[in-house]
Parts: sequence; structure tokens; C-alpha cells
Amino acid sequence: MNDVLQQLDQILAQRRQADPASSYVASLHHKGLNKILEKVGEEATEVILAAKDAAGEGSDGGREALVGEVADLWFHTLVMLSHLDCDAAAVLACLQQRLGLSGLEEKNARSEPAGGH
Amino acid sequence: MNDVLQQLDQILAQRRQADPASSYVASLHHKGLNKILEKVGEEATEVILAAKDAAGEGSDGGREALVGEVADLWFHTLVMLSHLDCDAAAVLACLQQRLGLSGLEEKNARSEPAGGH
Amino acid sequence: MNDVLQQLDQILAQRRQADPASSYVASLHHKGLNKILEKVGEEATEVILAAKDAAGEGSDGGREALVGEVADLWFHTLVMLSHLDCDAAAVLACLQQRLGLSGLEEKNARSEPAGGH
Amino acid sequence: MNDVLQQLDQILAQRRQADPASSYVASLHHKGLNKILEKVGEEATEVILAAKDAAGEGSDGGREALVGEVADLWFHTLVMLSHLDCDAAAVLACLQQRLGLSGLEEKNARSEPAGGH
Repeated sequence: MNDVLQQLDQILAQRRQADPASSYVASLHHKGLNKILEKVGEEATEVILAAKDAAGEGSDGGREALVGEVADLWFHTLVMLSHLDCDAAAVLACLQQRLGLSGLEEKNARSEPAGGH
Repeated sequence: MNDVLQQLDQILAQRRQADPASSYVASLHHKGLNKILEKVGEEATEVILAAKDAAGEGSDGGREALVGEVADLWFHTLVMLSHLDCDAAAVLACLQQRLGLSGLEEKNARSEPAGGH
Repeated sequence: MNDVLQQLDQILAQRRQADPASSYVASLHHKGLNKILEKVGEEATEVILAAKDAAGEGSDGGREALVGEVADLWFHTLVMLSHLDCDAAAVLACLQQRLGLSGLEEKNARSEPAGGH
Repeated sequence: MNDVLQQLDQILAQRRQADPASSYVASLHHKGLNKILEKVGEEATEVILAAKDAAGEGSDGGREALVGEVADLWFHTLVMLSHLDCDAAAVLACLQQRLGLSGLEEKNARSEPAGGH
């Protein structure tokens, strides 16, 4: 399952240069950062709604829809990272660094300010 | 870089059963789905703010902070999926299926309703 | 300035019954709660982006755009309340009740769980 | 019901100058725009969750909780506007201007880009 994000990094780097008329990714880059971030916000909302619906239904269909929304959210965060010259490899490196820490320390290891949440 | 999400799936499955007093992940499961979704919403907002700041600064520090926020967002979407008996493997399978389609069809391939965005 | 929200409550109650083909509000009710909540999420994201842009520019134009986004957000929260048989009057009553409390207690008075934020 | 927002504008203007140690509003201003926008994002998520729960339950308690969350969201958007030298009066003026237009034109009247939603 594992090289999907690696492939996706390559594809997103290519499409950043593509014709906005033929590539959805290129059209997002063309519209600019705010439009990409609106999509991130929209997809986050859709994830939350799909999770509530999946929990209410308890059905396989609900879970499948939720997975699709998470894929949409991750996809648009990767377009955003590409727009700012970053990629999935950096996110995975960050997650790996945190995974190396012991379970008891996991909370402090994440980058949240102490009183933040 | 590739087996990070596989490891994370395993770790999240273990921590779902852990003592809420010693594991942040277990404490989120214990608080329930709404609390987990509040975290997803918070992290999505923090991603958006970090992206605006990174774009404004154009610095490596801004990009690093953004990557950390994306890692936080992905992490909490995985806790959410784990809470509903799903995992990163399902998200990657979904992304892979879409990657197999041609670039011109990429937009229709994503699960968005036609008039949705 | 003050009876705007009262008028808006009346208008929204009327339009809930209108023809979805001729009224934007009726079309939202017709599409259902998830669609209305997607709009709330979208408008919240647009408020956040407009605030960052207004702060960066420090211009009157930026402030005007921000006010328009807040109006959009409030408007869609009122459509949502209307969909669930509530209205702006209830929100104002809630705010008024909190305003009656002393400033030092304002934080506890709001309905947030102690560890929530 | 109508002068609540007028009073709130006055109170928020006063508290912007207050001691961050004794006023929640002053403490938000002290922490800065990003912290205020994180609160806006959090409250928007809580509105969405409360609306789903209210719709699922259909109870008065669910509706009351939802109204409280909308009040929290409006409150924090007003703190944000105050931070950027705006207020509720501007939002109401914007809504009033839109209300003056005929129902059929309501959609175009709102400030959304044609293809935006």
C-alpha cells in the first residue's frame, strides 16, 4: 500500500505545471492559495459530516463514504503543500519522528501549545 | 518513507485499547467521536492559518510549521477512522484507485457532487 | 440598526416554504441539513481567510470583504437554525443572558467544557 | 430583542482595552489574531456537531445546545471584528442592504463568486 503517497508527490509536482484547462490540480494552483485553502476547509467539513453519518448508520456504505472524504481532504492538503513547495514525504517524515517517541510522551511530542486545546 | 502509515495503523489500533490516563489516543477514544471531530476541525483551522503564515513569510520555518500542522491533521483523521473501525490503508487504497485514472478525468473521479463546489 | 435580525427571522421563515427553484434559501432547505452545514463550514473558512487578508493589508477594502463574509456566515447559521425550528431571537436571548453576567465571569458563563479549549 | 448586539459592540470595545488577566476577551486580543481565528474555527465545528446532534435527537435540549454554540460562534466573530476595528453594526448594515433586494435576487446579492459554491 505504501508507495501511493510517493507516486502522488510526483503526480502533483507534474500537474502543478500542467494546463489549468485540462488538469483540476493545475486549475487550483492557477486560482491561488485562498481557493486551495477553501477546498481544504470544505473537505474538512465534509469529513466531519461523513463521520457523524457513518457513526449514526453504522453501515459499510457510511464508512466507505467517510474514507472517500478523508482521501479528498488529504489530497487537497497535498495540493496545498505542493503550492508552497512541500510534499507528503515531509509529512511522513514528521509523523515518523513522532512515532519514534514513547507512547506516554506522544501528547507533548505533538506540536501543540500547552494551553492550546 | 513508505511504511510509516502502516506502522501508524498498528499503533493506533493498539492505543485504542490502552489506558486513557497514559495514552492521548486512548483518552480521545474515551471522550468519544464529537471530541475527536472537534480536534479534526481545530487542526484543519490550524493548517489553514499556518499555510497563510507560510505564504506570507516564505520562510523555511513557516513551511516546517505547516508540515507539522498537516501531520497533526492527518493523525487526528486516523484516530477518527480508528474510532469507526477504518484505517490509513483504506485511505491509501482509495487514493490509489483514483491515481489509476487519467489526469483529465481526475476531477470527476473524486467523489464530489457535480454542483458541490 | 437593530431590527434587521427580526426581519431576517421573518424572511427566513417565509422562504423555508418557498419554491426551491426561485429562492436560494428554499433550495438549501430542499437539499437538506448536510448541505446547509457544508455552507456553514465554507463560510467559516472564508471568514478566516478574509481576516488574515484584512490583517495583512490593513485596508478598508479588506475590512469590507471581511464584514461581507461574516454576514454570509451569520446568514447561513440562521438558515440552519430555521431548518431546525430555531431563529436569531433565540441566539440574541442567549447572548443577552450572558451579557448580564459580570466581566470576570464571562468565560465560565459561556457553555464551554472546562478542558475544552 | 434588538439592542443586544449594540450593547455587545460597546462591551467588546471596552474589554479590548481591559486587563488580559481579568477579561477573557482581553486575553484573546493579547494572544493575537491567529488565536482568535482558531476559536472561530473551533466554534464553527461545534455548531456543525451540535446541529447534527440536534437533528438526530429532535429534542429541545439539542436545540438549546445548538443555540448556545451559535451564540459562541457569533461572539467570537465579533471579537475578531473588534480586533480588526470592525463591529456588529457593520455586519447588520451589510445584512440590511441585502434584505432590501427582492427574494429572487437574493443569491446574486450575496458576495459569492459565481462559481464559488
